[in-house]
Amino acid sequence: MEAKEGANGHSANEITCTAAVAWGPGQPLSIQQIRVQAPQKLEVRIKILFTSICHTDLDAWQGLNESQRMYPRILGHEASGVVESVGEGVEDIKEGDHVLTIFNGECGKCAYCKSKTTNLCAKFRVDPLQTVMRNDGKTRFLTQDGKPIYHFLNTSTFSEYTVMDAACVVKINPKAPLNTMTLLSCCLSTGIGSVINTANIHKGSTIAVFGLGAVGLAVILGAKTRGASTIIGIDINDDKRIKGQKLGMTDFINPSELETSVHEKIRDMTEGGVDFSFECAGNLEVLREAFLSTHDGWGLTVVLGIHPTPRMLPLHPMELFDGRTITGCVFGGCKGKTQIPLFVDQFMNMKDLKLEEFITHELPFNKIDQAFELMIHGKSLRCLLHF
Amino acid sequence: MEAKEGANGHSANEITCTAAVAWGPGQPLSIQQIRVQAPQKLEVRIKILFTSICHTDLDAWQGLNESQRMYPRILGHEASGVVESVGEGVEDIKEGDHVLTIFNGECGKCAYCKSKTTNLCAKFRVDPLQTVMRNDGKTRFLTQDGKPIYHFLNTSTFSEYTVMDAACVVKINPKAPLNTMTLLSCCLSTGIGSVINTANIHKGSTIAVFGLGAVGLAVILGAKTRGASTIIGIDINDDKRIKGQKLGMTDFINPSELETSVHEKIRDMTEGGVDFSFECAGNLEVLREAFLSTHDGWGLTVVLGIHPTPRMLPLHPMELFDGRTITGCVFGGCKGKTQIPLFVDQFMNMKDLKLEEFITHELPFNKIDQAFELMIHGKSLRCLLHF
Repeated sequence: MEAKEGANGHSANEITCTAAVAWGPGQPLSIQQIRVQAPQKLEVRIKILFTSICHTDLDAWQGLNESQRMYPRILGHEASGVVESVGEGVEDIKEGDHVLTIFNGECGKCAYCKSKTTNLCAKFRVDPLQTVMRNDGKTRFLTQDGKPIYHFLNTSTFSEYTVMDAACVVKINPKAPLNTMTLLSCCLSTGIGSVINTANIHKGSTIAVFGLGAVGLAVILGAKTRGASTIIGIDINDDKRIKGQKLGMTDFINPSELETSVHEKIRDMTEGGVDFSFECAGNLEVLREAFLSTHDGWGLTVVLGIHPTPRMLPLHPMELFDGRTITGCVFGGCKGKTQIPLFVDQFMNMKDLKLEEFITHELPFNKIDQAFELMIHGKSLRCLLHF
Repeated sequence: MEAKEGANGHSANEITCTAAVAWGPGQPLSIQQIRVQAPQKLEVRIKILFTSICHTDLDAWQGLNESQRMYPRILGHEASGVVESVGEGVEDIKEGDHVLTIFNGECGKCAYCKSKTTNLCAKFRVDPLQTVMRNDGKTRFLTQDGKPIYHFLNTSTFSEYTVMDAACVVKINPKAPLNTMTLLSCCLSTGIGSVINTANIHKGSTIAVFGLGAVGLAVILGAKTRGASTIIGIDINDDKRIKGQKLGMTDFINPSELETSVHEKIRDMTEGGVDFSFECAGNLEVLREAFLSTHDGWGLTVVLGIHPTPRMLPLHPMELFDGRTITGCVFGGCKGKTQIPLFVDQFMNMKDLKLEEFITHELPFNKIDQAFELMIHGKSLRCLLHF
């Protein structure tokens, strides 16, 4: 890393550092030196210490959604680090603070942020099409020869340093272990938040979780801490049975071992269906099973999986008349800057959380391609990359 | 009407009376004499005084849904009357009580009835495939020569006398005017109940109502009584503008006069969308507009319309990520025997309810075919039939 002061002072205070740059859909990430410009008004520059990979990064790297292709780009959104410097007007964050990055920001001032019912900020909500900073429509990342490198999901954490809007930077307790807390940047908050904010499950609730990736397992963890009496995990990968049980799952279903449909099995197990189901697989057939596995009269299905398909919901309107409800959320409905620091404090006081169960692999940052391979082949939940 | 005591006492206490019998899909209803048997255990025999026609009767008469065809049958479900006699074990209802018929019963004892979250009774919920009494699998209606005539929606009110499960009979204040209260038997409770029970809208809420038939207008009435600040009605029939305004609608949109989509228009009118939308048209394109017309972050769409189409919901799963929710309900989520008597008492104390706006026509019962014609041609909201 090399910082230099330019002719025009603050704004020229560039850092040159290492990043993994995506140059095209599916092309191997290039580990290269880039220039990271100084944070502008209400922006923060962060030295990333840990980052991990989520399926959203994988999809963006592969360019699955054509409208979201923009290269060169720095991907990555689940990360933790230390604030290197802040731009004009940033009051809640200062140099040296321990922070998490969030892709769904919270300005704290708009009508959405002031509403108790949503975590969608008017300005800083997640937007896959946003590739430049909102301040000036420019990037803060440049190639060595000064060409722009685009941003990703308000975060771009596959870089030794990144610049983000302060609305997307969450200051946390400096005593918290940053390695495990990194997962609160995305998967843990999405899963646990959906249980607390979106479903608001209660002691004794029965739930079913479809798809036991990191988000699904976080749902199990959240449900366990809320006192759910029945937590059914569903996955075609039998290895998830033990992982789920460690986190609080009470029952496991491998659909490939069933002769009936999953929803029939669940209705049999639960006197008519679970109170809440969570779809974390990003698959429409699974979503339909999740919907039908809830109890008529009061069942709620929360959609958490990303569905890149052009197909519509495989539900008939009359099926809603049985009193089932379906909803979705981003980032588990968490208002990031408000709620995540509380999660961190709570987690520090809970000894049996087993957050380490989520980190199945650790690698140095420059082995990021190996981390992608682990995810592609379903071998990792989260591979934590160290800078 | 002629009552006769048979050889085996109580159960042979038949009444011969007039009914409108459906003999086949779309065939003119036959006004004819039928035999109505005595109420069995936990059943009630009612002298119907007023009944009206709803689209569900029309669909059943036309046999739109093949699986629900069963003839001869006595249709009709929206009605009021006086109890003629009760069967063994009926404790909450006695001869002479003023009652409303409900197609979605409330036994008061099952897990559903004991749950605050649903109005779906385990045993007596609405079931279009139920055509006989649950006690013995037989009908209480017979032709003059003793052949069974099938029941409809727990009610069968197109008859001078009907027999129903006590769980589907609601005793109301005898001072209430039965003519207007008849509408609480279906459309009024469905519309108002969906506002109170399912959406639970609050003072200052903004709502949009798609389709201003009787249910849609009842939603407007319910929203007005709850203090909604903006009540937008949407209908392609411009005549509904005045009707809606009388009941509390603040704005009217005729989609055929728009150059944009309805949801874009509504978002423009309401700073991003309404808090709640109600789909009362039974049309999937309308349902999609209703869904998109709600505010992201917290919008709730309630489906009230009957959708006979085999098509699935025209919503993409990722559209749920904007924090919109969709749900449905039967009978406005009302627990009929508990909630309808309270509605009746409230309505008797509210002078400006304008329930008479819903009754656009009145006819003697034997002109029921005319009443169907009025509905088919969109000329009536409700045609009240008098016995």
